[in-house]
Amino acid sequence: MSFTPAVTEQRFVLDHVADITELAQQEKFADATPDLVDAVLEGAGAFAAGEWAPLDRLGDEVGAKWTEQGVVMPEGYGAAYQAYVEGGWGTIGSPPEFGGQGLPAVLSAAVLETLGTANASFALAPTLTVGAIEALMHHGTPEQQAAYLPRLATGEWTGTMNLTEPQAGSDVGALKTKAEPVGDGTFRITGTKIFISFGDHDMTKNIVHLVLARTPDAPAGTKGLSLFLVPKYRLDGDGNPGAFNDVTVASIEHKMGLHASPTCVLNFGDNGDCIGELIGPELGGIAAMFTMMNNARLNVGLEGVQVAERATQRAVAFARERIQSARAGAPSRESVAIVEHPDVRRMLMRMKAQTMAARALVYYAFAQLDRAHLGDKDAKKLLDLLTPMAKGHGTDLGSEVTDLGIQVHGGMGFVEETGAAQQYRDCRVFRIYEGTNGIQAADLVGRKLSMDNGATALGLLETIKGAGSANLVALAGALEEITTGLLGAEADDRLAASYPYMTMFSVAVSGWLLEKQAKAASGDSEFEAMKRAAAAFYAEQIVPEALGLKAAASAKADVLYSVSPEMFAA
Amino acid sequence: MSFTPAVTEQRFVLDHVADITELAQQEKFADATPDLVDAVLEGAGAFAAGEWAPLDRLGDEVGAKWTEQGVVMPEGYGAAYQAYVEGGWGTIGSPPEFGGQGLPAVLSAAVLETLGTANASFALAPTLTVGAIEALMHHGTPEQQAAYLPRLATGEWTGTMNLTEPQAGSDVGALKTKAEPVGDGTFRITGTKIFISFGDHDMTKNIVHLVLARTPDAPAGTKGLSLFLVPKYRLDGDGNPGAFNDVTVASIEHKMGLHASPTCVLNFGDNGDCIGELIGPELGGIAAMFTMMNNARLNVGLEGVQVAERATQRAVAFARERIQSARAGAPSRESVAIVEHPDVRRMLMRMKAQTMAARALVYYAFAQLDRAHLGDKDAKKLLDLLTPMAKGHGTDLGSEVTDLGIQVHGGMGFVEETGAAQQYRDCRVFRIYEGTNGIQAADLVGRKLSMDNGATALGLLETIKGAGSANLVALAGALEEITTGLLGAEADDRLAASYPYMTMFSVAVSGWLLEKQAKAASGDSEFEAMKRAAAAFYAEQIVPEALGLKAAASAKADVLYSVSPEMFAA
Repeated sequence: MSFTPAVTEQRFVLDHVADITELAQQEKFADATPDLVDAVLEGAGAFAAGEWAPLDRLGDEVGAKWTEQGVVMPEGYGAAYQAYVEGGWGTIGSPPEFGGQGLPAVLSAAVLETLGTANASFALAPTLTVGAIEALMHHGTPEQQAAYLPRLATGEWTGTMNLTEPQAGSDVGALKTKAEPVGDGTFRITGTKIFISFGDHDMTKNIVHLVLARTPDAPAGTKGLSLFLVPKYRLDGDGNPGAFNDVTVASIEHKMGLHASPTCVLNFGDNGDCIGELIGPELGGIAAMFTMMNNARLNVGLEGVQVAERATQRAVAFARERIQSARAGAPSRESVAIVEHPDVRRMLMRMKAQTMAARALVYYAFAQLDRAHLGDKDAKKLLDLLTPMAKGHGTDLGSEVTDLGIQVHGGMGFVEETGAAQQYRDCRVFRIYEGTNGIQAADLVGRKLSMDNGATALGLLETIKGAGSANLVALAGALEEITTGLLGAEADDRLAASYPYMTMFSVAVSGWLLEKQAKAASGDSEFEAMKRAAAAFYAEQIVPEALGLKAAASAKADVLYSVSPEMFAA
Repeated sequence: MSFTPAVTEQRFVLDHVADITELAQQEKFADATPDLVDAVLEGAGAFAAGEWAPLDRLGDEVGAKWTEQGVVMPEGYGAAYQAYVEGGWGTIGSPPEFGGQGLPAVLSAAVLETLGTANASFALAPTLTVGAIEALMHHGTPEQQAAYLPRLATGEWTGTMNLTEPQAGSDVGALKTKAEPVGDGTFRITGTKIFISFGDHDMTKNIVHLVLARTPDAPAGTKGLSLFLVPKYRLDGDGNPGAFNDVTVASIEHKMGLHASPTCVLNFGDNGDCIGELIGPELGGIAAMFTMMNNARLNVGLEGVQVAERATQRAVAFARERIQSARAGAPSRESVAIVEHPDVRRMLMRMKAQTMAARALVYYAFAQLDRAHLGDKDAKKLLDLLTPMAKGHGTDLGSEVTDLGIQVHGGMGFVEETGAAQQYRDCRVFRIYEGTNGIQAADLVGRKLSMDNGATALGLLETIKGAGSANLVALAGALEEITTGLLGAEADDRLAASYPYMTMFSVAVSGWLLEKQAKAASGDSEFEAMKRAAAAFYAEQIVPEALGLKAAASAKADVLYSVSPEMFAA
């Protein structure tokens, strides 16, 4: 089925959740006028629907291929990527001093959302490039910035993040890749990185790898890491890709989904000839990594929104077309479209509400990023608090909504031709990469509650309580109690409760943002009526469901440790 | 990884949930002595682990293939199926008068569980054969029974169920396949059926299709349906497969999972030469179909148990081996196996508890089937009530547990080599076929509550309240209130609440059965300690979570119908 860019919804959320009008009053974002915002949303929608969406199925069926010459993308991807670069779609949020448009991150996110709704695999390439741009903006030297940022800002080159190694999945402190000084200020890199999305491809003339590695005599653990810029091709005297930099693809993964996104095992320096430059100070790798990572986490949360939007559109279209059975209790025995059946409608309403919830949560976080960039310290704290929720809950909702999408399709949902199955498969890794959702939950109850002894969290809950409906007030109240408990809890107890806590908190935030939107949606349009209905459904059903997690979010770890690891296999 | 048959757990549930000892005191089941039960469970386990499990990955990678000569199974499947027939594994619950062993259905279910845990795709072949046997036992003539049952009871031939047609998915009343009398008592069948699992394959010499079709002048809707026996090859004078009966494979589906189970589009009578015999009276098709269907529904619930068990075993093995990060708050900074991390342990505990919950629920339903066969009318009512829960919730748990299994694997869960991804894909259709889980929920709040004005449901809740812990009493109390409300509710309201109601009720039943088991598990073994811990976790966390569905299970349909179908696309 064709894809309809969610422009009305995006615009509404930019207005009523992100308050883009207020952002545009700041000098930095003065270009973000209402007309420009409309033009960007509509232009991105037309581009994504026209150029990227048609390649989505093919990308799944054919997939990226690993060859002797490197990774080859499916037919049409190279041209569609060039069209993206030429259309300037990569430049929306990029720094103006390097050829970008410098528009708010939340608007840039809306564009990326649209691209990923059209083609989730493909949108990973720009998503990772954004991480590389951020790292260079914050930690690169002026020379590095001048050499790389103009090409990354347009998307002419893509970027990657190289963290994971075979022995070190979530534990970056255990990384072993080596960087040895050559003597001229550069480093010789040797090591193997795994799970590198778009680690290689044939769409651009260069690929800029950002690589965590360990210098000689560096301390063990995360404090011994440094970040290196390692291009696939070194730059020649004119700044163009020149000599091959000894970064080779050892294999690509055979994955459940995202087949058009090559997930590479990369070997650095197999022939002793891979040269990298430090980004930021030596041993400053972990800080630089978090710059990339936090941005990437918001973008992964956004991936949840992408698949949820597409799955909802597919399911709604199917349910309106598919005629099946008379409606129970109705006078007529004529078969009706399945959208008329209560349980199908419940699923569709849930899909609508959860998609709106995910979008609201993620855009709200992005809006804090913009305000943090403007120097708002409270916004920065809120951003820090919201990031694990946006990533964790946003991607959980991607899975939930695509799962409902299959169910609405019935038997057709299990066969591949509808696309519903593809999205269910594609999105499963969103809950895993850039820090598993379990790690997001740990971050929330650990670093994020500790940063100010819960002040930001409790402040947000207080706001929610003030504005919320009865169910929301009850949820926020329970969260206040749990938060206070977690602040004084032992590590094991805090972590055992972390995941249900993250879900509860995310629902409270989303519920509050939906309620806000429902109040703003006081008009007669179909869009506004749906917004009010979805918000009401969320408040009446999804908020109480989250309250049902209170016991789990208050539980201690003891029951988990009442048994030994062996007993799990008994 | 290798698969360890869950013999200890199966035996425990047979004893303490199904009360197989009491069943064995009945003459009909006198053979089900403790020694025999052990021998059957262990033998089936050894067979499944040795012969079927090793083919599971290959079946996913290669899949069944559609050729000019019909469907060809992956290498090794034919031999492994023959070994199943020769080992007598199909005969456990089959009627003794036709070569079966006539053991309790719940023991037969345990065997089927083990086969499906080893290889879920493959186990569909015997699962569907059981449906054909049931239909012939209850509705076939003595001649039909004599001709077909001995070969079906051993598995020498397989059976299929042919309901769905392209225009009629869940709505069997809309079926169009025709059956015209030939004049000799047989019928000429013409039509197309879709989604026929094991509709064709090359493992047996014949395939017995049971086909719903419409005789001339039959009334519209479900009342106009009759059931026909349509073999792939007609029987010759000696009762052996003879002339081809004009049943052809038009295609097989390209599915997300279950690749070794060919899902066929079957054409009946393309050349006007497909002959069927009536099973049961003309226009009695719907009743005969429910005989097959109800049995099949329990078996599909069992499929949820199968994948949950396998996924749990895989995840536990992975989490005990995978070394990653030091434990937070622990004095040692040494990396530990991830099973030591609280959130991983929470996931594993949940997987254990939910797998136990699914098994308890499904076995309990099968035990009622056995008691119903013994003439116990209350057991029959309980079976009717439990069937949609066993199918609906049992398969929901299959998805939940396989999903957690992927998460425990981290990045490795998204690549296909671990098998975790395969099970997540395989099981997705369990929630769809044999009546989607939405249809199960509708059956529960409709037919099953109406059959005795809620008496069986309320009686069961009363029992649960009497035996349960505080959380369980609260859940059962909420369910009593909701049940009473549903009995007087409008169809739309009842159906809008049906799915969360089904989940709540299923959790109450499972929680009660787990508590029962925990009380029986008073010993010192590792198995018993885990049983107690899982039951405690279930009562402390999963039961309150289900109580969180109260609002949704009490909600009216109005919010769903406050918007028009068009608005879902606005």
